[in-house]
Amino acid sequence: MNTFGQNFRVTTFGESHGVALGCIIDGCPAGLEISTEDIQAELNRRKPGQSAMATPRVEKDQVEILSGIFEGKTIGTPIACIVRNQDQASKDYDFLRTTFRPGHADEMWHFKYGHRDHRGGGRSSGRETLARVIGGAFAKKILQKNNETQIIGHVSALAGVTADENNFDESEIEKNPVRCANRESAEKMIEAVMEAKRKSESVGGEITIQIKNIAKYLGSPVFGKIEGELARAIMSCGAVRSFEYGIGKNAKNQKGSIQNQRKEGISGGITTGDDILLKISVKPTPSISQKQTAQTLNGEINDFVIGGRHDPTIPPRLVPVLEGMVAMVFADQLLAPVDRINQIFR
Amino acid sequence: MNTFGQNFRVTTFGESHGVALGCIIDGCPAGLEISTEDIQAELNRRKPGQSAMATPRVEKDQVEILSGIFEGKTIGTPIACIVRNQDQASKDYDFLRTTFRPGHADEMWHFKYGHRDHRGGGRSSGRETLARVIGGAFAKKILQKNNETQIIGHVSALAGVTADENNFDESEIEKNPVRCANRESAEKMIEAVMEAKRKSESVGGEITIQIKNIAKYLGSPVFGKIEGELARAIMSCGAVRSFEYGIGKNAKNQKGSIQNQRKEGISGGITTGDDILLKISVKPTPSISQKQTAQTLNGEINDFVIGGRHDPTIPPRLVPVLEGMVAMVFADQLLAPVDRINQIFR
Amino acid sequence: MNTFGQNFRVTTFGESHGVALGCIIDGCPAGLEISTEDIQAELNRRKPGQSAMATPRVEKDQVEILSGIFEGKTIGTPIACIVRNQDQASKDYDFLRTTFRPGHADEMWHFKYGHRDHRGGGRSSGRETLARVIGGAFAKKILQKNNETQIIGHVSALAGVTADENNFDESEIEKNPVRCANRESAEKMIEAVMEAKRKSESVGGEITIQIKNIAKYLGSPVFGKIEGELARAIMSCGAVRSFEYGIGKNAKNQKGSIQNQRKEGISGGITTGDDILLKISVKPTPSISQKQTAQTLNGEINDFVIGGRHDPTIPPRLVPVLEGMVAMVFADQLLAPVDRINQIFR
Amino acid sequence: MNTFGQNFRVTTFGESHGVALGCIIDGCPAGLEISTEDIQAELNRRKPGQSAMATPRVEKDQVEILSGIFEGKTIGTPIACIVRNQDQASKDYDFLRTTFRPGHADEMWHFKYGHRDHRGGGRSSGRETLARVIGGAFAKKILQKNNETQIIGHVSALAGVTADENNFDESEIEKNPVRCANRESAEKMIEAVMEAKRKSESVGGEITIQIKNIAKYLGSPVFGKIEGELARAIMSCGAVRSFEYGIGKNAKNQKGSIQNQRKEGISGGITTGDDILLKISVKPTPSISQKQTAQTLNGEINDFVIGGRHDPTIPPRLVPVLEGMVAMVFADQLLAPVDRINQIFR
Repeated sequence: MNTFGQNFRVTTFGESHGVALGCIIDGCPAGLEISTEDIQAELNRRKPGQSAMATPRVEKDQVEILSGIFEGKTIGTPIACIVRNQDQASKDYDFLRTTFRPGHADEMWHFKYGHRDHRGGGRSSGRETLARVIGGAFAKKILQKNNETQIIGHVSALAGVTADENNFDESEIEKNPVRCANRESAEKMIEAVMEAKRKSESVGGEITIQIKNIAKYLGSPVFGKIEGELARAIMSCGAVRSFEYGIGKNAKNQKGSIQNQRKEGISGGITTGDDILLKISVKPTPSISQKQTAQTLNGEINDFVIGGRHDPTIPPRLVPVLEGMVAMVFADQLLAPVDRINQIFR
Repeated sequence: MNTFGQNFRVTTFGESHGVALGCIIDGCPAGLEISTEDIQAELNRRKPGQSAMATPRVEKDQVEILSGIFEGKTIGTPIACIVRNQDQASKDYDFLRTTFRPGHADEMWHFKYGHRDHRGGGRSSGRETLARVIGGAFAKKILQKNNETQIIGHVSALAGVTADENNFDESEIEKNPVRCANRESAEKMIEAVMEAKRKSESVGGEITIQIKNIAKYLGSPVFGKIEGELARAIMSCGAVRSFEYGIGKNAKNQKGSIQNQRKEGISGGITTGDDILLKISVKPTPSISQKQTAQTLNGEINDFVIGGRHDPTIPPRLVPVLEGMVAMVFADQLLAPVDRINQIFR
Repeated sequence: MNTFGQNFRVTTFGESHGVALGCIIDGCPAGLEISTEDIQAELNRRKPGQSAMATPRVEKDQVEILSGIFEGKTIGTPIACIVRNQDQASKDYDFLRTTFRPGHADEMWHFKYGHRDHRGGGRSSGRETLARVIGGAFAKKILQKNNETQIIGHVSALAGVTADENNFDESEIEKNPVRCANRESAEKMIEAVMEAKRKSESVGGEITIQIKNIAKYLGSPVFGKIEGELARAIMSCGAVRSFEYGIGKNAKNQKGSIQNQRKEGISGGITTGDDILLKISVKPTPSISQKQTAQTLNGEINDFVIGGRHDPTIPPRLVPVLEGMVAMVFADQLLAPVDRINQIFR
Repeated sequence: MNTFGQNFRVTTFGESHGVALGCIIDGCPAGLEISTEDIQAELNRRKPGQSAMATPRVEKDQVEILSGIFEGKTIGTPIACIVRNQDQASKDYDFLRTTFRPGHADEMWHFKYGHRDHRGGGRSSGRETLARVIGGAFAKKILQKNNETQIIGHVSALAGVTADENNFDESEIEKNPVRCANRESAEKMIEAVMEAKRKSESVGGEITIQIKNIAKYLGSPVFGKIEGELARAIMSCGAVRSFEYGIGKNAKNQKGSIQNQRKEGISGGITTGDDILLKISVKPTPSISQKQTAQTLNGEINDFVIGGRHDPTIPPRLVPVLEGMVAMVFADQLLAPVDRINQIFR
């Protein structure tokens, strides 16, 4: 399933070392002003080589728009965007035809599909998420225009360091390479990540997303509850292991009299207009440079040392991806017929 | 959105105090043996009045099959099942036409739809979930026949009491009214819930679900990852606030070298055949009998004491509902074209 | 596939000799006034036993609404409607377990599904269409309220008799049992049908549908063109063999300079607000009482005389079914997000 | 709606004078051998400039594959294909910003979308169909591999000339520029088209499609009948005005005893394995070079002479497009879960 959304639909394509990656966005309203630069700005937040926190793979990740935009505005037709791969370094991966990397999806893809592109994980590579960022850029524009909605992600825990959320400074997020909203916490996180990297280790972390100024009444009761749509979108990003909203995991220890007074931004599966808070836990990068063991096509277990270039931790580059997914969920709901439906016969 | 699933599709209907609730199941394979008793057994696990843990509302919740089954087996056509409401006690709710119960979806539904059934929350009532249990009964049969798959839910925390998971006894689950897998923990939970009830309070809890003997290669990469489908299904149940699988929220503190050795049952969004573990946190019942304040249609804030009959805690009756949702997700994937697609040209 | 529509979704169920048939309508706007009588009136136009033109099977076809309507108006939740079978006379059909009726779908269903309800064709019976009429009743109400849209079907040819369309009298249609809009033509049609019936023969015919006062801009370019949606809806009714709109089959002999001046009500797949004309050709009823040959489960070809009760011709009872399908297509489009989408950023 | 299919899904994009057109194909099985040349061969049958029957617009229509194919075979991931526009000649169209061409969709698009690409009709141009041909090339490969299925289209009537179908010669079809299966008829058609062209006129025609060696049991009863899916696919091509299968429009004059003996290749909405015959009537090209009148944005009616380069008739170039649509319908059904579903519990 490579299409996300029912109304605002993003269909993505592309393998890590193929010709290009990209997406078609169908269902975007006509008349939306958006430029290549707007999309590129989001892509640059995700692209590799930003800092020592990220893989040194050199990719410009330059987007080209092929359709759907005329004289600076959308025309209601499908918008096709592509990003050509440059630094493919495919030879590094030749031995991966027959050896499955530990912690990666290589083995599952091999047996599910029979024939696969083994280079850098092919389509199961994290590079797939660049198309999500493109879709997210359009979704953010829609939400911004609709209600000045803001979707603000930051890294709230990394490598065992928890951010000081009491001294939250939104302006700090894009200033440090770990996307933490507190400078002091950011410095501790960087130190902890670099320490792990020196030990050929990788580390997990947590992303928190705030949603502000969201339109009321988004989401559809029963099976289309907005929290379900958000959870599916977030959990469709490879390394995520938990999703919480509102009181989250603490719900299990909560009392009704207190819970009834909370404003969590969602009620009955529908947005109330209040802020929504999401917390997402992310596992460590599976590619680490220490010696491991790996299974081969023949079922042998061999010593394994991976080459290639890898991030020591995922959350900093995942922030724009998750923001994009959240934006797509809300844009999809904003454009859903149910709203229209229920305004017709008032 | 009242349809769940793409291949195994369950469309539900019904209000808490309407004529009947039920569902149509479309996409169920022909030739599946299933009886009214099989479905009733699952419904009985969810129905009210089982113990002091549950609302005393008297409902037999007797299912009637209208179509799709002939001589004891499915025929590949849509299966319609209905449950008529009996103990509607609608008068209790008359004043709720203009007063929105705290912690409930009443207000959102009122403004989203304009015209609503105010009695007991109408369609936003937890009573809606009985149709999920019916769908789940069919899905479980499919999974059982396919691979003897088992989906076993239990209450792992309740009212502040955490279950002793080291002394897990599956045979205990259905023997105690809180559906805990350890007798001693169950007794503590019961005590804590009754204590809360005496204080006119309600309490939250946690459900853990084990999935055993699941077929390999279920789930579709990128946007159809099995963990995303599970999260959406689970989060579409009203009171849920968090979803975790595998290492869950602890991912944020994990190291790559250790994580790579875990077997979490899912890799690249596809089942591996290993067991899968889910954890779900559930908020307290919003209906409590202590005096609260409530908003009216005119925006006034008044003192509020709710009548009606309510559960002091949700998780024990939610166990069969969540099991059913999980079963529906896997049945849907088991019947997905992608499996067939990728076997054609081998 | 037992669900019709993307926005206004009708999911149907039921076998010819099962417990009940019916549907769930999801996506109907809240606040629509509709009564059981409104639906029953449409069902009565389709029900058996209306005249010598129709099967004498005795069915009241009494509809019961189970959900989705409160105090006379829809509430935006799924509307479940059921019709219980009465005069099932199943024994007439016992030998059909192993013999496939000529011209019916029995054989295909047997081999496609393995296990089937052989009584009266089970779900492949024309009786299935009563659920379409129920869905159509709601769709017509929506269209009527939206723009006083009218969908008027009549039989324009039957048993070799072509109606005198130059003397079209709309008020005549429901006054004669063949639903022809000209009294003289109707009488000729009745005579021709009765003559065929006496010869144990069945006959084909043609239905013409006029659509008036339809909203502008319905339909979605490229794959969602309104004429494609109409064609699919109409062709999904068993006995239909051709679909035409506007100039129809005469397009092949048309010149551009003349065609450019026609108003066909659709341009670029979108409604223009002008009237739309559809023509549908319908094959004869496959059940005839003369001796035929039929294939059995073992591949033998035997002499075959069918019992049961059958219509000598299909079009008169098909008129409300096709009207219903057309109404559902337009209601679905009227409630589509694309309209909303393209009004947002004007 | 720019996606076709449920299982084999083709999402198309592109405007007539934009940067590129193309599609993403999702749901294509892994392991299918296909080359750029295979796709190009189909595109060449549709491309402009083939003969005096077609527009002299110079376009190579060279396809580039961006993803989904590795070492000559599909890998089960989405396949992105693009065709860059070359001979855009956009200036010819400048005055069309404010003047709506007669017989075209310009006016409807303008008012439905508010902001549009007026150059050559933008996305409503027939040039959109090249993406359908690409999707069709993949679908044909799947059907060919599955059962050596053949989908053979030809022009059976053009400019008032009916083909001599009694002397049908399949090998002739691709040898003449009108794609007629009889040389003598082809010559008459060419003469008639050229005569119309000299008079600045355009002409309609009819396409017949034969489907041979199709798998049994494709199609889904009730709303997913294969004839409905075919009709929708065919009618989604702009200039089509009628769709017939089997006995077609003659059904209205047919008798049951005779009809019951026909083999039409479809029964109960499901393929029987017998050949299927489709007939499609096509209106004349709306762009003609004689003086017409046209409406402007302000509602004025002015004299109008169109520049640009246009086909005098549509059917010859439409043959590969309709073949492609038919192939997509069958591939979609071949890969549908329903087949798998109903084989599981045998």
